Amino acid sequence: MLKSNLNQVRSTTPLVHNITNYVTVNDCANILIACGGAPIMADDVDDAVEITAICGGLNLNIGTLNSRTIPAMMTAGIRAGELNHPILLDPVGAGASTLRTQTALNLVETLPLTAIRGNISEIKTLATGTGATRGVDADVADTVTPETLDAVIAFAQEFAAKTGAVITITGATDIVATGDRVGIIRNGVPMMADITGSGCMLSAMATAYLTANPGDPFMAMVAAVCAMGVAGEIAVKNMLPTDGNATFRNRLIDAIYHLDGDTLEGRASYELR
Amino acid sequence: MLKSNLNQVRSTTPLVHNITNYVTVNDCANILIACGGAPIMADDVDDAVEITAICGGLNLNIGTLNSRTIPAMMTAGIRAGELNHPILLDPVGAGASTLRTQTALNLVETLPLTAIRGNISEIKTLATGTGATRGVDADVADTVTPETLDAVIAFAQEFAAKTGAVITITGATDIVATGDRVGIIRNGVPMMADITGSGCMLSAMATAYLTANPGDPFMAMVAAVCAMGVAGEIAVKNMLPTDGNATFRNRLIDAIYHLDGDTLEGRASYELR
Amino acid sequence: MLKSNLNQVRSTTPLVHNITNYVTVNDCANILIACGGAPIMADDVDDAVEITAICGGLNLNIGTLNSRTIPAMMTAGIRAGELNHPILLDPVGAGASTLRTQTALNLVETLPLTAIRGNISEIKTLATGTGATRGVDADVADTVTPETLDAVIAFAQEFAAKTGAVITITGATDIVATGDRVGIIRNGVPMMADITGSGCMLSAMATAYLTANPGDPFMAMVAAVCAMGVAGEIAVKNMLPTDGNATFRNRLIDAIYHLDGDTLEGRASYELR
Repeated sequence: MLKSNLNQVRSTTPLVHNITNYVTVNDCANILIACGGAPIMADDVDDAVEITAICGGLNLNIGTLNSRTIPAMMTAGIRAGELNHPILLDPVGAGASTLRTQTALNLVETLPLTAIRGNISEIKTLATGTGATRGVDADVADTVTPETLDAVIAFAQEFAAKTGAVITITGATDIVATGDRVGIIRNGVPMMADITGSGCMLSAMATAYLTANPGDPFMAMVAAVCAMGVAGEIAVKNMLPTDGNATFRNRLIDAIYHLDGDTLEGRASYELR
Repeated sequence: MLKSNLNQVRSTTPLVHNITNYVTVNDCANILIACGGAPIMADDVDDAVEITAICGGLNLNIGTLNSRTIPAMMTAGIRAGELNHPILLDPVGAGASTLRTQTALNLVETLPLTAIRGNISEIKTLATGTGATRGVDADVADTVTPETLDAVIAFAQEFAAKTGAVITITGATDIVATGDRVGIIRNGVPMMADITGSGCMLSAMATAYLTANPGDPFMAMVAAVCAMGVAGEIAVKNMLPTDGNATFRNRLIDAIYHLDGDTLEGRASYELR
Repeated sequence: MLKSNLNQVRSTTPLVHNITNYVTVNDCANILIACGGAPIMADDVDDAVEITAICGGLNLNIGTLNSRTIPAMMTAGIRAGELNHPILLDPVGAGASTLRTQTALNLVETLPLTAIRGNISEIKTLATGTGATRGVDADVADTVTPETLDAVIAFAQEFAAKTGAVITITGATDIVATGDRVGIIRNGVPMMADITGSGCMLSAMATAYLTANPGDPFMAMVAAVCAMGVAGEIAVKNMLPTDGNATFRNRLIDAIYHLDGDTLEGRASYELR
């Protein structure tokens, strides 16, 4: 199942339009190529609508959003919706500022989002309209533990039912939820928090998975989250003693580049409810 | 001949002004240093004209162009022209949107371009005023094959004669053309298409070659294209089994960093007509 | 002493707000994580003030400044000042254009800067109101030599006394100065000039050091400069023959990631006057 999701990406080379932050944009582009997709970035309102029309999916990431890119996100999103393209929202730093929170909320309300991926603090902010994040990282008070897992799942499913989007909350344990389905993924390594862009890269890659697997966005998200986690595990295994987070970033993308369906299927640690 | 082009870059450290996309800008800066040049980026209309005046050459790349950077490209280009600086245009995604196509056409019409470098789809778009690209990659219908090579060369020469710019079309086989000269380069490896920015990096580096070798822009472009292709071959040779596209990107820049004139001369596979 | 500065960063995870250029921003984010801090980037005037308020320190870097980011720097800086957050200014390219020089001078005049870090040409520009840089690199005429060292120190101390900021001039020999204290650091390797962003990364990391060590900004800067130099030395030691500047960049960040207080203390080569 995961295998076919991965293979669909490699065999169809989905072209993904990214309106994303300038911090991790290069990594997002390279991981899209690594997974079998193709990236294009266009964030001017006069360019984004046309560019999104030639793509298969749209990845909206509000890190380093600004007065110029916000209308581009909105208009590209509306156009992508008209074309039935999958749209993923990554609400980077929602809860950290009014502009980020409000922009994310506006996008959620206006666009027919296929998926939303963030950390627990960001998703809580979107669901409740207010929240606290520690910058772009999850607030400690929000950490998902074995004790809180069921409550977080119920919360995610409720928000998924309300929005119609597949809700993906990533952290030490990852949760993918629709109103009636849940995936719990236990792949990944702590070092993924030691680089900038693990989340951004996952969102970019997941948009390629959604685009290549239009029949089942839920499983596409589960597969993408598993792929990222498995790649993290492979990347750590390939680390030399002097390697640090910069090299880890490269090895993570490299691992996605080499990941095949059998490896993904064999190493994925996930549970569907 | 190629050797002297490379050595001129290393001995004169040309300072290149880049108005370029934010996706691959870091790689462009590092490859400029690797080849022996020096980069500076300035894309505000109030900054770009003065910055271009202290540089030796100008690299205009329209990926992620926007309403703020387009006038900066134009005014910096006009100033660079007044100063007789070489100007290279990389029409990323021309044909993919009206804004990109129209901006590229305006730059071609207004500026005394020394060189234009793109894939076959982008160059066709500029030459005909309309075209189709698959995002920022060449359209499949446009692939240069042994059967179509002569026609593509004739097309490139015609466009070169019309614009006065050295036309460089890169792909599996690379073509460098003026109205009466042609270079066909067969270096390079398929993996160069597996990273973002191979083309952008070549354009940045080629601007350094043009700046350091003002007497013969055609040979400067041939040398830069050969250098990039040879570096790709060396980079692949240095790959370990677990290395993927992220590491390839580093090894490519590393190979440019170590490339010397004799290696370039010895490994370059090119034909002049 | 240096050891406690480093350990303070690792134990407090200072969140640093960066308004910085898009060329080296990813490296700045990753080195902030590597050293034990956490990065956030926000450069829109409607976002920057709120974001800076949730952070502990502010890093202002004027590379690729533009009409949209300049007011964000100013307003975020004013807010950071009200909150007594340390503010570091990196005047990239001051002296290379009127916009850069004037923006840097305005920031110096308006904000309660804790530290200013640049090359000798940039700092001279700020101190005298005019100057010459070779793009973003120091002008050759400005090179600090054993013969000119005392004069440069006197100049730095005078400018420090005038501005109240810790003045840090980096080059082959690094100088950290207040009105009555001086640190001379002799760590580092020439290869740090072969990548883009050595200075930007140091400024980002130094802001984390300032944030985590509010009691003594002078020693925080000395420690950050030593850490960067020592990391450069370690990175070079870890280079393989085919590694070039791209790989060096990764190894530099990797070395910061692994750097501990004892190694820093043991390898730091500095003199306090």
